[in-house]
Amino acid sequence: MSLQYRTVHCGEVGKEHVGQEIILNGWVQKRRDLGGVIFIDFRDRTGIVQIVFNPEHDKGAWEIADKVRSEYVLAVRGTVVERSPEAVNPKLKTGEVEVYVSEIHILNDAKTPPFQIEDEIDVDEQVRLKYRYLDLRRPEMQRSLILRSKAAKAFRDFLDAQGFVEVETPMLTKSTPEGAREYVVPSRVHPGEFFVLPQSPQLFKQLLMVSGMERYYQIARCFRDEDLRADRQPEFTQVDIETSFLSMEQLLPMMEEMVAHVFKATIGVEVPTPFPRLTYAEAMERYGSDKPDIRFGMELTDVSDLVAGSDFKVFASAVAAGGQVKAINAKGCGHYSRKEADDLGKFASRYGAKGLAWIGFKDGEVKGPIAKFFSEDVFTAMKERLAVEDGDLLLFVADKPKVVADALGALRSKLGAELGLIDHSQFAFLWVVDFPLVEWDEESQRYIALHHPFTRPRDEDMHLLETDPGKVRAQAYDMVLNGYELGGGSMRIYKRDVQEKMFRTLGLTEEEAKQKFGFLLDAFDYGTPPHGGIALGLDRLIMLLAGRNNLREVIAFPKTASASDLMVDAPGPVDAKQLAELNIATTLKEEE
Amino acid sequence: MSLQYRTVHCGEVGKEHVGQEIILNGWVQKRRDLGGVIFIDFRDRTGIVQIVFNPEHDKGAWEIADKVRSEYVLAVRGTVVERSPEAVNPKLKTGEVEVYVSEIHILNDAKTPPFQIEDEIDVDEQVRLKYRYLDLRRPEMQRSLILRSKAAKAFRDFLDAQGFVEVETPMLTKSTPEGAREYVVPSRVHPGEFFVLPQSPQLFKQLLMVSGMERYYQIARCFRDEDLRADRQPEFTQVDIETSFLSMEQLLPMMEEMVAHVFKATIGVEVPTPFPRLTYAEAMERYGSDKPDIRFGMELTDVSDLVAGSDFKVFASAVAAGGQVKAINAKGCGHYSRKEADDLGKFASRYGAKGLAWIGFKDGEVKGPIAKFFSEDVFTAMKERLAVEDGDLLLFVADKPKVVADALGALRSKLGAELGLIDHSQFAFLWVVDFPLVEWDEESQRYIALHHPFTRPRDEDMHLLETDPGKVRAQAYDMVLNGYELGGGSMRIYKRDVQEKMFRTLGLTEEEAKQKFGFLLDAFDYGTPPHGGIALGLDRLIMLLAGRNNLREVIAFPKTASASDLMVDAPGPVDAKQLAELNIATTLKEEE
Repeated sequence: MSLQYRTVHCGEVGKEHVGQEIILNGWVQKRRDLGGVIFIDFRDRTGIVQIVFNPEHDKGAWEIADKVRSEYVLAVRGTVVERSPEAVNPKLKTGEVEVYVSEIHILNDAKTPPFQIEDEIDVDEQVRLKYRYLDLRRPEMQRSLILRSKAAKAFRDFLDAQGFVEVETPMLTKSTPEGAREYVVPSRVHPGEFFVLPQSPQLFKQLLMVSGMERYYQIARCFRDEDLRADRQPEFTQVDIETSFLSMEQLLPMMEEMVAHVFKATIGVEVPTPFPRLTYAEAMERYGSDKPDIRFGMELTDVSDLVAGSDFKVFASAVAAGGQVKAINAKGCGHYSRKEADDLGKFASRYGAKGLAWIGFKDGEVKGPIAKFFSEDVFTAMKERLAVEDGDLLLFVADKPKVVADALGALRSKLGAELGLIDHSQFAFLWVVDFPLVEWDEESQRYIALHHPFTRPRDEDMHLLETDPGKVRAQAYDMVLNGYELGGGSMRIYKRDVQEKMFRTLGLTEEEAKQKFGFLLDAFDYGTPPHGGIALGLDRLIMLLAGRNNLREVIAFPKTASASDLMVDAPGPVDAKQLAELNIATTLKEEE
Repeated sequence: MSLQYRTVHCGEVGKEHVGQEIILNGWVQKRRDLGGVIFIDFRDRTGIVQIVFNPEHDKGAWEIADKVRSEYVLAVRGTVVERSPEAVNPKLKTGEVEVYVSEIHILNDAKTPPFQIEDEIDVDEQVRLKYRYLDLRRPEMQRSLILRSKAAKAFRDFLDAQGFVEVETPMLTKSTPEGAREYVVPSRVHPGEFFVLPQSPQLFKQLLMVSGMERYYQIARCFRDEDLRADRQPEFTQVDIETSFLSMEQLLPMMEEMVAHVFKATIGVEVPTPFPRLTYAEAMERYGSDKPDIRFGMELTDVSDLVAGSDFKVFASAVAAGGQVKAINAKGCGHYSRKEADDLGKFASRYGAKGLAWIGFKDGEVKGPIAKFFSEDVFTAMKERLAVEDGDLLLFVADKPKVVADALGALRSKLGAELGLIDHSQFAFLWVVDFPLVEWDEESQRYIALHHPFTRPRDEDMHLLETDPGKVRAQAYDMVLNGYELGGGSMRIYKRDVQEKMFRTLGLTEEEAKQKFGFLLDAFDYGTPPHGGIALGLDRLIMLLAGRNNLREVIAFPKTASASDLMVDAPGPVDAKQLAELNIATTLKEEE
């Protein structure tokens, strides 16, 4: 038996090992000297166990142990001993035992790390990212990465059992449509030409359906050169799925089962199926969001009819102009000061609202600057419609439906969190369906695809595709969890003529369509089956599974908000020779 | 029950379904009309079944069927019927039954494809690559991709069971050492700087060991901007593995078990373990290759001692100059003409040999221009040493050991194949171990790492690292199968001072080492465990598993030898605006 390799993991030493000689490998979490005896909290991936060096038992081992410091790497041989009742440490899983060490090897030493290797440290994230290899040593980070690995396996197990074939698609590929900014890769062999890193394997997965693969999946790395937010990374991972011959009504339940399997296999949570469904129209109407958090109510309620004829001009004119007036009920906020209400107004204005009106109901009275404009009858109707009780606060936005939805939707989310309305133990899944196929883009003065240009219109709306595209509903669906879009997909167009119509609707000339997607149009000529699929964002799913609130907590080596890797210091300069070989040059001025 | 979705796959319809009504989805492989009845070979991913349209049974279905052509996509409902004994088709798995169709939907039509959708077509590969979505419809390509998916799953199942954690490492990263030419990705956010696409996750996997992950794996996409050969692709996939605390003697058996599991789970072949091992020196000595095909003998045999004193100057002077003379025995080739022998000589010269001497043994006589230089005693000794029988041919190369190995090694491979010495049903694994740590590079006048600069020297050779690095053997190993290097790995350096010595040996200044690998050196300061790993080329492994001889046969969407994707037409031009945003420009002259 080699001393180097462990016979048991630290976190797994228990009463069943008492009396046994074991070998452990790991790191020194903490060293204490008590009355000449050295106690070390000894850590590996699984947890911590106490190892003991008593000079009276083994002077040699004790002398070596006397030299070790935090984060030294050791291999030790010792005997497992039951602790006396008063020495039991209930905070440790291994707290009923300790290991009397007879042999110790220092495998490596360690400087004092820049932060403690333990959970809940208060350290600047930049430091954590620079020393990511130490940050990942912390138990909560290890748990996240292990959870991620388990979740990926659970996805694969489910999909393999359902006859899906995992196919790897290219990373060095061509521009994909309608998307975010792309990363490009200069080609050395083809001067002046570039590969593009994929935003998704969309075209390849559709071509795999043309090829008769029938059920494809891939846990695929994708790339987007966008300005980053807490929930965006330049490279991200998606569970990418495509099927042939299935209708939406067959695919969606399968995807629900898949996600339920992953939750069960990783965190033991039973996810009820089927998921509720909301149409896009209903989601916007009731929650002001196409990814509503349905763990709480506070729904947006239309009061346009009640206030249309009122003396409050802002409301009356908004309705007269074809807009609407909606309200949410901030339960128990009737005591808010004018300042507090104004702060909510400022928040709403970030979402386009020109103002936020409010009415408080407190001690039988109606408060607020606009209260005077409405009759008792209107209040009664409002109170009924919004289930107002004494102590509540109504918040109103009057504008175009889009602005009303955005502003009140954002306010609803903010207040839901602040008022503690959210049950954080709950996983509230839903599907949002019946998205519009296209929307009019004022800036470019053309229709753009809401999902992507390969999304199939609903059969009954197909006839509107060329006459009134804004009215066409898509066979598209988003999976939403707790206010996050986990992913989305659609049934795809599989007839060449429909795809060509769609491209025309989006303003592509025949030539542009051919140049960009000729191979797909050609493929449609050779027997393309009906197909559709979905892509789920793995990073975000793991974030929610792990109960974290930042993608960087569930990615081993993430980029910062400025798309840098602080540990390896990337991006960085490249040899002029290398650039010359690639037939490119930087266009920076010298002084830059 | 929707008509669209199948109740059973085509290839799985059997006698057990007789009398049942089923739904099938798939493609028309072939249509035949016999006496007014239409027979269609109907295909999906699983195989083919015959479906029958009889106008006397169902006129409507027959009329639709009359319109279909090859590669039309259909959904059909019908009843499974047993064929009469004389109608049984023994070539089809489903040949004992057929399906009488009562309902048919044409889901999509198809033009005549550019080649037949069947195995063993004789079509230019360029055409196959351009219409890859049709090429992948062919059964042998589908089998390859399904095999690949199964193999990946088998790797994962094994590694998951052994406590490995799958961790995704970045694709947008920094230059890695000592390697091939790299693909670069301009950064928009950091003008003038570039990411690099990884040649391997080497540094990240080592840092994961620093982070205490202990057992890591990833089926990782890697990139190499090299000129391509049949067994190279610009992007490729490796099964990437790293472990802590294990010695080489613990890791290698685990990797053997893993590969044996994959072979068993995918093609049902039992791979015997442990794998034989050859030192690098022995592999070069006996086979003239560090990745020998040991399915046949024809070993390189040293005859320097026999010919050193001979009158044949070429041999004598080679030995006198410190070189060697070696021979292989081409069994049964004693009848080769001078022309045939000369052709072998030309082949050998491509590998650096200045000449190829030969002696034939035929009908008790010794043939060949150099035969006259040697005594009967020498022939007797040669015959014994090389097990020469009547009818054999000895081929000699006299030169420096490297040239002798290269030339005779290549000849051995060529003749082994041509003479039919290879049992193609055999999978002959071995480990090649004890590689030199570094080799002297004449061109750059410095030592370069044979594996990479993180490879750990053997303990007993460590003292030579700074004094005689060429003599240091590495704790490195290659897994070899049937003459292909499946992959390789090493135990890694885990002490900062050793790593610094290694960088110095490779001619890096302290500053260069710090700039390139400072983060790794820093990491070694904080308690790095002993670690080591391996990377196996998945593409090549699948190629061998599938019995194919070209990587492109086991990659869904491969690149050509000029690194192009002929289907999507990548690489391609990029908008000037996009390049401007990235602060780069192409340096091509207008006329180019």
